[in-house]
Amino acid sequence: MSERDGRVVVALDVGGTGMKCALIRPDGAVVHAERHLTGADRGAEAVVDTILAVADGLVSTARTAGLTPTALGIVVPGIVDQTRGVAVWSANIGFRNVPLRDLATDRLGLPTALGHDVRAGGLAEARLGAGRDAGHVLFVAIGTGIAAAHVVAGAAATGAHGAAGELGHILVRPGGPRCGCGRSGCLEAIASASAVARRYTALAAGTTGDADTTSDGGSAAGPTPGPTVVTAAEVADRAAAGEELATRVWREAVEALADGLATGQALYDVQTIVLGGGLAQAGPGLFDPLRTALRERLTFHREPRLVPAALGDEAGCLGAALLALDQLEDS
Amino acid sequence: MSERDGRVVVALDVGGTGMKCALIRPDGAVVHAERHLTGADRGAEAVVDTILAVADGLVSTARTAGLTPTALGIVVPGIVDQTRGVAVWSANIGFRNVPLRDLATDRLGLPTALGHDVRAGGLAEARLGAGRDAGHVLFVAIGTGIAAAHVVAGAAATGAHGAAGELGHILVRPGGPRCGCGRSGCLEAIASASAVARRYTALAAGTTGDADTTSDGGSAAGPTPGPTVVTAAEVADRAAAGEELATRVWREAVEALADGLATGQALYDVQTIVLGGGLAQAGPGLFDPLRTALRERLTFHREPRLVPAALGDEAGCLGAALLALDQLEDS
Repeated sequence: MSERDGRVVVALDVGGTGMKCALIRPDGAVVHAERHLTGADRGAEAVVDTILAVADGLVSTARTAGLTPTALGIVVPGIVDQTRGVAVWSANIGFRNVPLRDLATDRLGLPTALGHDVRAGGLAEARLGAGRDAGHVLFVAIGTGIAAAHVVAGAAATGAHGAAGELGHILVRPGGPRCGCGRSGCLEAIASASAVARRYTALAAGTTGDADTTSDGGSAAGPTPGPTVVTAAEVADRAAAGEELATRVWREAVEALADGLATGQALYDVQTIVLGGGLAQAGPGLFDPLRTALRERLTFHREPRLVPAALGDEAGCLGAALLALDQLEDS
Repeated sequence: MSERDGRVVVALDVGGTGMKCALIRPDGAVVHAERHLTGADRGAEAVVDTILAVADGLVSTARTAGLTPTALGIVVPGIVDQTRGVAVWSANIGFRNVPLRDLATDRLGLPTALGHDVRAGGLAEARLGAGRDAGHVLFVAIGTGIAAAHVVAGAAATGAHGAAGELGHILVRPGGPRCGCGRSGCLEAIASASAVARRYTALAAGTTGDADTTSDGGSAAGPTPGPTVVTAAEVADRAAAGEELATRVWREAVEALADGLATGQALYDVQTIVLGGGLAQAGPGLFDPLRTALRERLTFHREPRLVPAALGDEAGCLGAALLALDQLEDS
């Protein structure tokens, strides 16, 4: 807290389950951090109230500590219209055209930037994290889903409707597993952490592992005893230990991921691909075979560096701060 | 030629077979146009000599007509490093790291911009042609190959190594036909004009139609009587007339193309997709089923407008002029 004038920005990364919040100085140093539950089950309106109340609380915390909050950055999942400051659509929070930026400006009186969580995470990784030496970066977050951010010269591409970078929803296996989005064969339906876990569990039980039969459908099957549910990390561990089924499921995921990254490289042509999210924590068990598989798929394209994310789950919050700071610079 | 000060830029679009060349005013009006053979069979060095001689001739033509050439724009196929002004690699002309921009500047004494032919064509379509009302445009050229240019706010993305937008080399059919690039199942191997013609011809003859068996291999098979070779346009016509084999090949190409465009939309999120190149001249026979197939593939993404190119085969040359003019503005 030693910076002369004590200026900070207020940053919120709103997820389906929790919110990561911080007061961050212009040099990127986190002065204060706190976490809250999103409570998405209460509906979008209640979530908006919580976001505004938490932001308000952070502004008070800052002032109490003698700091000067200058701007607010909020990032949310789904489709985000950054230019208009609107949370257009989100599956797990239920936002439908929420003018979150203006609501926050009205409430707090601070200039506010609204952004997309994965694009903000990519922005932070590209400027401050694992991609900081590269001008062209593709950040890929692999968790429950798969999403990407294409960052060039320190700016993340938003697309015309706030929906760019949906690497999880490109076709890699025609006729393959059903995806949560409604199509079949999307990358996310094969290589996301939840798809890996689902596929392994289903094969162990002799079913297909489609998203529509074992995932979003929930526990409608009732008390029928199911197979033991494992996580993607456990599948990776079992594959590393040589277990046959795990090896097969893991290899299928790595190959689909390599196909997806090769498509990303063909269209974006980046220097560095940064992998984040839960699955990227599998370490060499993921990166070694993935590098090999990606190399096999690139013919005339330059092979990008393939590196793990450096900022962990704080990337989105740091990215929210960067959006807030960028806005101050632009205005 | 009535503009007051008579300023023009010299524009060259160098293709594998021919060069389209023009003198173009800052307002985009073509004052003079000429075409030359590239003569790629003479080797890259001879092609460079021809490019410089043709450009020199255009400068003289301009001055003789009382015009003032202010800059030169050259666009070439392959991988182009626009920042360094180097033609890095091209399959059909044989360029390998040719510093074409500096060679031209030395010879002509004019500020020179070097660009990529399809990206320049996309730039022209986005600013002056079928995409002129949209801020985010994907231009897709479908001819012998398939390549794309992503244009945002009037600038075409180049990528880190000058290789962005290679939509022809994304995987759409795992285990599918061999592509000229060495992989299998690339979009270009199924939906380019040459792939459509090859596939139809091969199926009619009872073979596979892979790029490596019937195309680049040439006529090594000697005098064995082969099937009649048809063009993609003829396949489209025969499909429209209800011929079974043509209908099947055309449908396969349209579906692969829809998969490729859906992937492009998932990653780029544009307002307008402009289709150019020979295949796009198939008109409603292409656009009607393609729009339907693309719509079926988009779940949460906004459907882009899908329109034919407006500038025909002059787009690349106009784009070369835009690059030259942009450079003057930047300097």
